[in-house]
Amino acid sequence: MTEERAAPGFTLQPIGVIRSCFKEKFGTPRQAGIAPSAWAEIEFIEPYNRKELVKGLESFSHIWVLFLFHETIAAGWKTSVRPPRLGGRRRMGVFATRSPHRPNHLGLSAVRLLGVSNGNGRLALEIGGADLLDGTPVVDIKPYLPAVDCRQDASAGWLSEEFAAMDVAFIDEAAAFCRDYEHRTGRRLAKLVQEILEQDPRPASQRDKKDRFGMRLWGVNVTWIIENERCLVTNCEILAENNC
Amino acid sequence: MTEERAAPGFTLQPIGVIRSCFKEKFGTPRQAGIAPSAWAEIEFIEPYNRKELVKGLESFSHIWVLFLFHETIAAGWKTSVRPPRLGGRRRMGVFATRSPHRPNHLGLSAVRLLGVSNGNGRLALEIGGADLLDGTPVVDIKPYLPAVDCRQDASAGWLSEEFAAMDVAFIDEAAAFCRDYEHRTGRRLAKLVQEILEQDPRPASQRDKKDRFGMRLWGVNVTWIIENERCLVTNCEILAENNC
Repeated sequence: MTEERAAPGFTLQPIGVIRSCFKEKFGTPRQAGIAPSAWAEIEFIEPYNRKELVKGLESFSHIWVLFLFHETIAAGWKTSVRPPRLGGRRRMGVFATRSPHRPNHLGLSAVRLLGVSNGNGRLALEIGGADLLDGTPVVDIKPYLPAVDCRQDASAGWLSEEFAAMDVAFIDEAAAFCRDYEHRTGRRLAKLVQEILEQDPRPASQRDKKDRFGMRLWGVNVTWIIENERCLVTNCEILAENNC
Repeated sequence: MTEERAAPGFTLQPIGVIRSCFKEKFGTPRQAGIAPSAWAEIEFIEPYNRKELVKGLESFSHIWVLFLFHETIAAGWKTSVRPPRLGGRRRMGVFATRSPHRPNHLGLSAVRLLGVSNGNGRLALEIGGADLLDGTPVVDIKPYLPAVDCRQDASAGWLSEEFAAMDVAFIDEAAAFCRDYEHRTGRRLAKLVQEILEQDPRPASQRDKKDRFGMRLWGVNVTWIIENERCLVTNCEILAENNC
């Protein structure tokens, strides 16, 4: 084993950066694809912002995004974690989870490829079903190959426990805000809020909390309460510090 | 974009190393899963060789292996490549392929998890369907989550062109060698050779070559010829320099 221990580390250079509606970890979907309305962009960084590098990619419906969980790098990695889907009651080895608190902090997401945009030296991929924080460094893009990547015989392991989506409702004012926001920006806010809240973004440690919860999507602050195991969106408002 | 350009690179540390039958690139399957008999091991490196890190992983049938294409790092990356599946006739952007000649040289394989072994301070995962060179540095292991990773609606892009498996036959002496080898070692050599040759491992540049071809699996040299679009295995022999 000596040769491997002595092997020097390999330095990753970001090839792109995520532009998404998720400005903070709370509310960001825990996996790709579960909030299809979560549109985002991968903006390529020089010298990778050349159209030749993505020639042919537009023929695929889905792509893999390999990225760095940049917000957990400073905190280091953990041997084991308590996955939120198990209610925080059981510990799993970090390699048996998709937790960001992992050695090398690499993330992997299969997302829908909605389009490739190119102009004024800016090359970007538009994606759907993102679970990626705004500002996330991207280190690789690969086509999703259903013949090798879609393993229909795979078992879901400890994640096979049933998960019931939460009911989500909006008070009238919040629903009206979302309609107006979508009309002005084209962003499907109500649909996105519903997809996120159905998955119950609360960490296990806050499942008994009776307070309001809030998350920020683009420049909108969304507030909800939990009532009889149902999410009720009580307020949506533009954050003071920005204008979108 | 200034902040991203200025972002420092992130240094990966290998968490493990691949022990596989593939000693050289030629003959190594181009994708995971297409040669199910390609068994391999992921041997964890200190300080990651602790059983707590993989607790719960054994409940999954498949895992993702993230690794470095270490043999192409020195050569750097290419803007575009000629995928072998297109006969080398067309160029695709490197991000539209799974080529190793990519920025950051990261590889991604979904493999079957056959077992977890632990003893004498050695922690290893036994895997099937590997497409990984012996000695490959592994940088992450993740459970395969069918609910999010298996996208049944994904289109195969430029790879959707039909691919016909090649017919494979063995001369009697080669078949007898394989039976004896399997009996002595438990390694399903004939099955593995068949799975590899069905995919035609020849690079596009050698498709018109009439010579013999050879590949090394474990310590065995396997020789074949192409006759009427069929692979005929003409010889299998133990390489002089080793005893397996």
